[in-house]
Amino acid sequence: MSHDVAPFLGMGDVLTPKPPEAPTLDPRAVDRRGAKRFRELELAIDGITASYDESFEINNLESSALPSRRAVVDAVRHLLPVIFMGFYTTRSLNRDNLRHSIAEHLYAAHEILTEQIDRALSYERRLGRTSSTSVVRGEDVALELFRSIPELRRVLETDVQAAYDGDPAAKSIEEVVFSYPSIFAITCYRIAHLLHSAGVPMIPRIMTEFAHGKTGIEISPGAVIGERFFIDHGTGVVIGETCVLGHSVKLYQGVTLGALSVPRRECNTQRHPTLKDGVTVYAGATILGGETVIGEDSIIGGNVWLIKSVPPGSKVTMKDK
Amino acid sequence: MSHDVAPFLGMGDVLTPKPPEAPTLDPRAVDRRGAKRFRELELAIDGITASYDESFEINNLESSALPSRRAVVDAVRHLLPVIFMGFYTTRSLNRDNLRHSIAEHLYAAHEILTEQIDRALSYERRLGRTSSTSVVRGEDVALELFRSIPELRRVLETDVQAAYDGDPAAKSIEEVVFSYPSIFAITCYRIAHLLHSAGVPMIPRIMTEFAHGKTGIEISPGAVIGERFFIDHGTGVVIGETCVLGHSVKLYQGVTLGALSVPRRECNTQRHPTLKDGVTVYAGATILGGETVIGEDSIIGGNVWLIKSVPPGSKVTMKDK
Amino acid sequence: MSHDVAPFLGMGDVLTPKPPEAPTLDPRAVDRRGAKRFRELELAIDGITASYDESFEINNLESSALPSRRAVVDAVRHLLPVIFMGFYTTRSLNRDNLRHSIAEHLYAAHEILTEQIDRALSYERRLGRTSSTSVVRGEDVALELFRSIPELRRVLETDVQAAYDGDPAAKSIEEVVFSYPSIFAITCYRIAHLLHSAGVPMIPRIMTEFAHGKTGIEISPGAVIGERFFIDHGTGVVIGETCVLGHSVKLYQGVTLGALSVPRRECNTQRHPTLKDGVTVYAGATILGGETVIGEDSIIGGNVWLIKSVPPGSKVTMKDK
Repeated sequence: MSHDVAPFLGMGDVLTPKPPEAPTLDPRAVDRRGAKRFRELELAIDGITASYDESFEINNLESSALPSRRAVVDAVRHLLPVIFMGFYTTRSLNRDNLRHSIAEHLYAAHEILTEQIDRALSYERRLGRTSSTSVVRGEDVALELFRSIPELRRVLETDVQAAYDGDPAAKSIEEVVFSYPSIFAITCYRIAHLLHSAGVPMIPRIMTEFAHGKTGIEISPGAVIGERFFIDHGTGVVIGETCVLGHSVKLYQGVTLGALSVPRRECNTQRHPTLKDGVTVYAGATILGGETVIGEDSIIGGNVWLIKSVPPGSKVTMKDK
Repeated sequence: MSHDVAPFLGMGDVLTPKPPEAPTLDPRAVDRRGAKRFRELELAIDGITASYDESFEINNLESSALPSRRAVVDAVRHLLPVIFMGFYTTRSLNRDNLRHSIAEHLYAAHEILTEQIDRALSYERRLGRTSSTSVVRGEDVALELFRSIPELRRVLETDVQAAYDGDPAAKSIEEVVFSYPSIFAITCYRIAHLLHSAGVPMIPRIMTEFAHGKTGIEISPGAVIGERFFIDHGTGVVIGETCVLGHSVKLYQGVTLGALSVPRRECNTQRHPTLKDGVTVYAGATILGGETVIGEDSIIGGNVWLIKSVPPGSKVTMKDK
Repeated sequence: MSHDVAPFLGMGDVLTPKPPEAPTLDPRAVDRRGAKRFRELELAIDGITASYDESFEINNLESSALPSRRAVVDAVRHLLPVIFMGFYTTRSLNRDNLRHSIAEHLYAAHEILTEQIDRALSYERRLGRTSSTSVVRGEDVALELFRSIPELRRVLETDVQAAYDGDPAAKSIEEVVFSYPSIFAITCYRIAHLLHSAGVPMIPRIMTEFAHGKTGIEISPGAVIGERFFIDHGTGVVIGETCVLGHSVKLYQGVTLGALSVPRRECNTQRHPTLKDGVTVYAGATILGGETVIGEDSIIGGNVWLIKSVPPGSKVTMKDK
C-alpha cells in the first residue's frame, strides 16, 4: 500500500512510519486473552471505519487527488540550493559545476511542481471552484516560476543585505544566510507569492505554513512585500493575506499585521494594513485593519495596539495610548 | 549498543546519529601529538563519567525503563492517518482498502502504546508515585483510546469546520486540514487528553510538547476543551493544565490562558481560567487565574491583561484598563 | 556530486533530497512539446546560472569552506546523550557501559567539532576578520569544551531542578528532562556559550538558532546566564547578545530582553539588559537597553514595557505605566 505522508503543517518532514503488515493472528493458536484482544481490536477498527460513512468533511476520500504536502516541501528543498548554491555545496564551484548543480535541482523541482500544481488545479476545477475553461498547465506555471528566479535572487540579495545592516548582532553576511530564520521564511514566502500570483491554489499556503512551522514566522502568500525586508528574531510574526508592505520594512518578533473582523462576503477588499517604505515595527506590536496605513518611515513601538492610520514620520509608543 | 534517541521536546524527530566505534588508537602507532590528544580525550571522558557519580537528578540511570519519546511520537504518527485517512493516501479509497489502511496503522499504534504506557505506569509504581495495587494495563488503555476514535473524529470535524468558518483566509476545507497548525495541535491535544483522563503519566505531555515544537501552540493535556475549537495563527498560544474551555472558543496567536502564582501544595484546585461558550480572545491577550471566568460570547481584545472575571457578552479592550 | 545540506535555520534536519541525474533528453526522440519544454528549461537554467555572475553577497562561492550547519547540528546531537545519558539509553547502565557510551559519542563529536571549528576560524582569517597569527586549533577548543562538561552538567542539574520547583504542572523530574523545551534550549545555549567564549565564530549561532527552530526560544550565545535558569512555556522568548542574567532567573513565554536602537559602531558596549538574581519576568514583557538593570528579586508583570532600571524587590505591572 502507499501512503502519502504528512499533509499537516509541521508534519511535512515527519514520515508516517511504514506500518507493518496487519498481523495474521490465528485465534486458535494464541491464548484466550490474545484472541480476545484481537477481536476487540478488530471491533475498534470496524467502528473507526464506520465513522468514515458519516457526512464529515474530514471523510473526504477524493483527497487522494489533492496535492501532496510532502512533495511540495521537497520542491522547496530543491529550490533553496538553486537560489543559494554557494551555501549548500561542499566543494569548490566553478561556472560548469555550478550550472550542473542548478540543473539537477531544477529538473527535480520542475517534475514535482508540474504534477502538484496540476493536481491542485484539477481538484479546484472538479469541485467547480474555478472555471473549467482555464487551461493553465502545471509545467507552464513551474517554468514561469523558474524564469523569475534571477529576479527573485536579486530581491533576496536585498533582504539579506537588509538583515545584515539592520542587526548589530550580525557578524557576517554568511552568518545571516546560514542561520537567520527570517531569510528562510522570506525565501519560502517569495516563492509562494509567485505561485499565488499565478493563480495556483493550496500549494502556496503549504509552502508558507512549512516555513511557519520551522521559524515561527507566518507570512501569507497573498501579502505583497517590497525589497530590503527584514524580520529580526521573528517568532510570532503574523503577516496577513492582504497586507501591503513597501520597501525597507523592518519587523521584530511577535508583530501582528492582521485583520479586524470581516464577514466572509466582503473578502475581496483589503483586510490587512498597508505599511509604507521604511516603516519599523517593534516587538509585540499589533496593527489591524484594511484601511490602516502606516506612513513612510514611521516607527511603531513595542506592544503598541494600532487600528488607525498614522502619517509619515510618526512615532507611536505605548505611552501615546 | 542501543540508544533510545531523543527524549527531548524538539528532539523527537532528531535522530542521534549512530556513533562510530570508539577508535582503537595504538598510542605507539601515531605521532606524539595524536597520542597526547588520545590521552586528553580519554581523561575528558573519565571526568564526564565521574560526574555521573554525583547525586544529580539528571544522573538517573533508572530511566532506561522510562517511556521512549521517539516511540510515543511514532504512535501519534500512526494515529493521524487513522483519523484523517483521506488526506494521507495517494490512491483512491473504497471501503475495503480504507479498512485495511486503518487496520495497519492501528495495529502498529497498539503495539507501541501498549509498551510505552506500561513503561510509564511501571515507572511511577516503582517510585511509589501511584498505588501498586492498580492493575491498569497498557493494552487496555490503548484499546479504550481506539474505541474513542469515532467520537474523537466527530469532534475534530467540528474543529475543522470552526476553522473554515472562522477564517476568511481559508479557501477550502481541504486547505484547513492540510496546512493549519491549529488542526495538528488540537488533534495531538485531544489524543493526549484521552490518555491523561485515563491516568497515563508522562506520555500525554510528550505528545503535546511534540505538537508544541511543531506549531508553537502549547496545550496542556489536562485542559478541558469543548467542540468547535479554533486557534488562528497560533504561535505563542499557551493553554494551562487546569483550563476549562467551552464550545466555539476562538483564540488568536500569542494568547496565554495561565495561572497566577500558586504554591505547589494547592495544586488540586483550578489554577487556570474558565472560558464559556462562544468566547473569542484576540492576539496577545493574557488571562490568568483559576477563579477567572470569561462569560459566554465575550470578546477579549488583543494584548488585554485580565485577572478577574467578566460577565457574559462582555467586550474588553486595552482602552478599558 | 555532493551537497552539503541545509545551512539554514530550521533546515538543519531537512535533507535536501538527492537530485536525480539531469535527464539526458534527446530532442529528436521526444515530441515537439517535450523538446520545447526541454529548451525552455535549459534557458531558465542559463538565466539562473548567469545571475550568479552579479556581485551579490549571496553569490559567494567561497562558502564551500564555511562550516556545515548540518555537521554542527550532528555534533550537538552527540553531546546531548553525553550530558543526559540516562534519558537516552534503552538498556540498564552500569559504570562500564556508561563510560563506553559516553566515549562513543564524544569521539564522534570531537571529530566533527575539530573540523567545523577549524573551518570557521580559517574562513574568518582568510577574510581578514581575525588576526592570522592566532593559532587556536579546532581540536584544542573541542577538547576544552569537553573538559567543561562535568561543570556544565552541574549547572544543567540546577536548571532542571529550577524547572521542577518553578512549575506546578511538573509531575516529575523525568518529565522535565523529557519534554520541557526550556531544558533543550538552555542546554544548546550553554554549549554554544562555551564555544562563543572561546572565540569560535558562526558555530555558536548555528547551535542556538537550531534550538530556536525547535522550541521558539531564542538565546544569543553571547548572553551570560547564571544557574537555576528556568523558562516556562518559552515560545517567543528572545535573549539578546549582551544580556547578563544572574542566578534563579525565571522567564515566561514571549519575554523579550532586547536592545534599544544602537548604531553599529557602538557595538562593544552592553546593549541588552541586566537581570539580577531571583528576577521573575512574566509573559509578554519587554525589557530593553544596555543600561537597564532589574534589581534582585524583582517581579516584572506580564506585557510590561520597561526601558529603565528598577531597584531590588520591585514589582512592576502594567497598571504602573
